[in-house]
Amino acid sequence: MSGHSDTTKRFLLAAKHAEISALQHLASNCQVVSSICELIHQFQKERGISNIFLSSGCERFAQQRRVQIVESRDAEDLLRSQLLAKYLVGDEITGNMRLLNSVTLALQGMDHVGVLRYKVEHQAISALESTQAYCRLVAGLLAVVFEAADVASDPTITRLLVALFNFIQAKEYAGQERAWGAMGFAKSHFDHSLCERLEQLQHSQLHSFDTFIEFANQNERQLWLDLEKHSSTIALNQMRSMIQQLADGSPIDSGISEIWYELATERIDQMHLIEQQLAIRLLKVAKQRVKIANEELHSHKKRLQKLATMTASQDSPLSMLFDASLPGLHGSESNTEHKKSHTDSLAVHHSFYDLLRDQSEHIRKMSEELNNAKRTIAEQKQIDRAKLLLMQQLGHSEALAYRTLQKRAMDQKIRIADMAELVIKAAQDELQMKPC
Amino acid sequence: MSGHSDTTKRFLLAAKHAEISALQHLASNCQVVSSICELIHQFQKERGISNIFLSSGCERFAQQRRVQIVESRDAEDLLRSQLLAKYLVGDEITGNMRLLNSVTLALQGMDHVGVLRYKVEHQAISALESTQAYCRLVAGLLAVVFEAADVASDPTITRLLVALFNFIQAKEYAGQERAWGAMGFAKSHFDHSLCERLEQLQHSQLHSFDTFIEFANQNERQLWLDLEKHSSTIALNQMRSMIQQLADGSPIDSGISEIWYELATERIDQMHLIEQQLAIRLLKVAKQRVKIANEELHSHKKRLQKLATMTASQDSPLSMLFDASLPGLHGSESNTEHKKSHTDSLAVHHSFYDLLRDQSEHIRKMSEELNNAKRTIAEQKQIDRAKLLLMQQLGHSEALAYRTLQKRAMDQKIRIADMAELVIKAAQDELQMKPC
Repeated sequence: MSGHSDTTKRFLLAAKHAEISALQHLASNCQVVSSICELIHQFQKERGISNIFLSSGCERFAQQRRVQIVESRDAEDLLRSQLLAKYLVGDEITGNMRLLNSVTLALQGMDHVGVLRYKVEHQAISALESTQAYCRLVAGLLAVVFEAADVASDPTITRLLVALFNFIQAKEYAGQERAWGAMGFAKSHFDHSLCERLEQLQHSQLHSFDTFIEFANQNERQLWLDLEKHSSTIALNQMRSMIQQLADGSPIDSGISEIWYELATERIDQMHLIEQQLAIRLLKVAKQRVKIANEELHSHKKRLQKLATMTASQDSPLSMLFDASLPGLHGSESNTEHKKSHTDSLAVHHSFYDLLRDQSEHIRKMSEELNNAKRTIAEQKQIDRAKLLLMQQLGHSEALAYRTLQKRAMDQKIRIADMAELVIKAAQDELQMKPC
Repeated sequence: MSGHSDTTKRFLLAAKHAEISALQHLASNCQVVSSICELIHQFQKERGISNIFLSSGCERFAQQRRVQIVESRDAEDLLRSQLLAKYLVGDEITGNMRLLNSVTLALQGMDHVGVLRYKVEHQAISALESTQAYCRLVAGLLAVVFEAADVASDPTITRLLVALFNFIQAKEYAGQERAWGAMGFAKSHFDHSLCERLEQLQHSQLHSFDTFIEFANQNERQLWLDLEKHSSTIALNQMRSMIQQLADGSPIDSGISEIWYELATERIDQMHLIEQQLAIRLLKVAKQRVKIANEELHSHKKRLQKLATMTASQDSPLSMLFDASLPGLHGSESNTEHKKSHTDSLAVHHSFYDLLRDQSEHIRKMSEELNNAKRTIAEQKQIDRAKLLLMQQLGHSEALAYRTLQKRAMDQKIRIADMAELVIKAAQDELQMKPC
């Protein structure tokens, strides 16, 4: 009469199976993210080379461009084959709706890289337009990394994905800074608005790097600190200061363009090494988490077998019905003594109920940690959304929209994420007030 | 060269398939929730009857109890068969880890109802202990409804689940108020602490009903307002006032117990009718959402076929690469004109890219609405967690823990959910500072 039904035991194991299944999907997502990370790097290189190729009237970097296109294509082919293998096996759909939709958008962009390359080849596009198109391509791929972080169910992996996303994002800003700088040198002068754009991009880099540092581990943080002290960074910082002094439009030798480009590229390549470290750890942790969960399932099964042959101790309650540490009748005195002694000896299971409580505690802790990591993601999403709304409402550029958001937050002495929430709320209210 | 790869089209449809698959799982969860709602009602009735049976020394309600146990068993059997059919079909695990774990806990409780009934039958348990056990049983089932709301992927269904959860929760508080009141009358007097418990339970009911009202539709709100004006509610409110005047311990005729019990029961039965209305709408909406998503998939397929035979208009960009409404190079001027004209004619698809953008917009809107509903759930989770922490830290009862939380929030002039967050944060920090 005091036993547990077979159904209850099956559900205990089913919850563990569901965890394993979610972790396996997550591991697939991580492999895709790792390939995306590589492809973004190739597209960033192709963007820079194409920019110089166009700016020089197709004279410079023609050969480098051909070599680079082969590399980009290889990385794209790898990603495409992975996407098919991970998400479109037979008729079964394993991915999450939002992740799959972001993949579709990224693929849509990749489908048109051929058109873009053709236009570059035939100078049917300006250097600025070409850069814009490559930026959107990268943004589309980066959005997949973001969604992968947002749909992840494991706190450690979520934290790693947030770190990686922010690092790639910061590197992308560094790439855009390189492009704007190159344009300034090509024109032989930097005006006030260009200087502001560069400053904004440096600021955005710092912001993303801060989030990366918050979510990275000690080793990755150290790699980043080392890069900050690297000769290329120091030299680049000197050039950054120099450019800011040219805001009045003073002429500058366009030949310095190459030094700028090389320094910025060296730093970006160094960043890529850190990116790869993050991606390697991501794959390792994802694999490990699947392994651990499988071991836990195995241990659960063994414990269930053992418990079936054993007489349960009467020290602890055998059912949630008689567990005084659980809230019962509202207003009754609580008795948390059992709970305390229980948490001291998590490894010992005297009854099925002990095992179940441990699993519940494991899930609760994971959900709590997960929520902490997801809060950062939710805030980034809100800031992006508010930025886009301000761009649409006020016709602002992305940078100006961000500055507007920042300024309003400072004026009201609130966090930028909270300001973003207010902007979104106001837009929603306005939408509801509109007559249909 | 400007076409879209077959892969991209397949991913567009895969995202829709993933949405349908998630909605089908959600529809399953809703059916389980509907059965849980019924079973909770039966256990609540069994709790009340068992209470009187025990208090009267097994003299009263013996026959009613036997009848009720049959009804409870029928509802339990229905739920059990549904759980097996929905989540444990063959080797495939379709449920979410957290939902399955909460189901395991609820099942664990149900497995021991036999023990509980045996103890009640043989008077081997006090009326208070029996009530406690039934309360935990109900709490375990209610936790499944909460998890179902928390893992739901559709905003409309999530809102309905939040409304239903809060309504059942309020009804449970009403049931507990009935039990404490009955105990007071049985003892022929109400002391200060019992009056406080009753007041706390009335307050908790109001709080849960407020959330229900926020998430219910017009019809359900009206049903609730009608019940508030119902004769049983008015009479019950008079008895509530009378009890509060007895806080000094003045004696009261224990015979009034029956009137109290009958009035409270009548009101609870009325609540059950509203609960059933909510459950019916839940099942209807869940079915409808699956149907609509399937229709959208069908329409997507037809549009893809049509687009394949059609020359795309050159008015709008054919790729995200050249879509000026998307952010590109950070700092470039934005061009949102296309975006505006686009949102005016959502139904027309001139290109695959138009279709993809619509789907993205659909997903974005859904995610935004979903996040709004989920925020309420996250706050409820935080308050529950903080309450439990205070119970453990200070040895408080559940009611006192809630009052402590409420008082601290008022003192610091912040929302109770924000206070709960501070309590959780402090506990986490303390845990990290402890030497291992």
